[in-house]
Amino acid sequence: METHEKVKSVNRYIDGVSSQDMDAIREIFDEQATVEDPIGTEPHVGMEAVCKFYEGAFSAGVKLESAGPVRCAGNAAAFPFIARTPNMEIEVIDIFEFNENGKVTSMRAYWGPENCAPV
Amino acid sequence: METHEKVKSVNRYIDGVSSQDMDAIREIFDEQATVEDPIGTEPHVGMEAVCKFYEGAFSAGVKLESAGPVRCAGNAAAFPFIARTPNMEIEVIDIFEFNENGKVTSMRAYWGPENCAPV
Repeated sequence: METHEKVKSVNRYIDGVSSQDMDAIREIFDEQATVEDPIGTEPHVGMEAVCKFYEGAFSAGVKLESAGPVRCAGNAAAFPFIARTPNMEIEVIDIFEFNENGKVTSMRAYWGPENCAPV
Repeated sequence: METHEKVKSVNRYIDGVSSQDMDAIREIFDEQATVEDPIGTEPHVGMEAVCKFYEGAFSAGVKLESAGPVRCAGNAAAFPFIARTPNMEIEVIDIFEFNENGKVTSMRAYWGPENCAPV
């Protein structure tokens, strides 16, 4: 998978989450994808669980904003961003892993209480 | 492992690499640690292979500079930084995984050609 395709997927994710676009989520993720957000919590496994997770994010009014370049290597991409809700800003790093069809098979989010600030 | 201990380890890593301090590397990493830099390449496995990898980095005159907050969750920390050599700057995200003794058991580095710029 080419770097520009990974970057396109990441940008579509950032825009898709911010515009509450579940079609984007369904396009980006593989049917068997896992989402662990944050790392150390129970993963959401499979498309329906993944969509349910993002329904929650959409309900919370989350908007994402890139906070630096996407780093692509191997089958993966790492990217820093800020997740904003009406009450809070969170500084996050996500890792996407892609399969040969260009779908995200694994999303892992790195953030903790120290990365959260009220707004 | 507390967040502040993870952040301390990350900061010691950034300072240790920049000052070519192999004692810091030996303190930070577990004896069985793996280093995959960048993701998709053959990992360096075990302390001696890890030290040999950093000897190469030291020879290249690499200096690291934080490029954003450390994100800690579960047993892991993710952090963005710039790696500078005399000829190049690379924008990198590293993931550390820690064991219960506070040692890094896995370092994975995310960066690609698109993150490299001549200086």
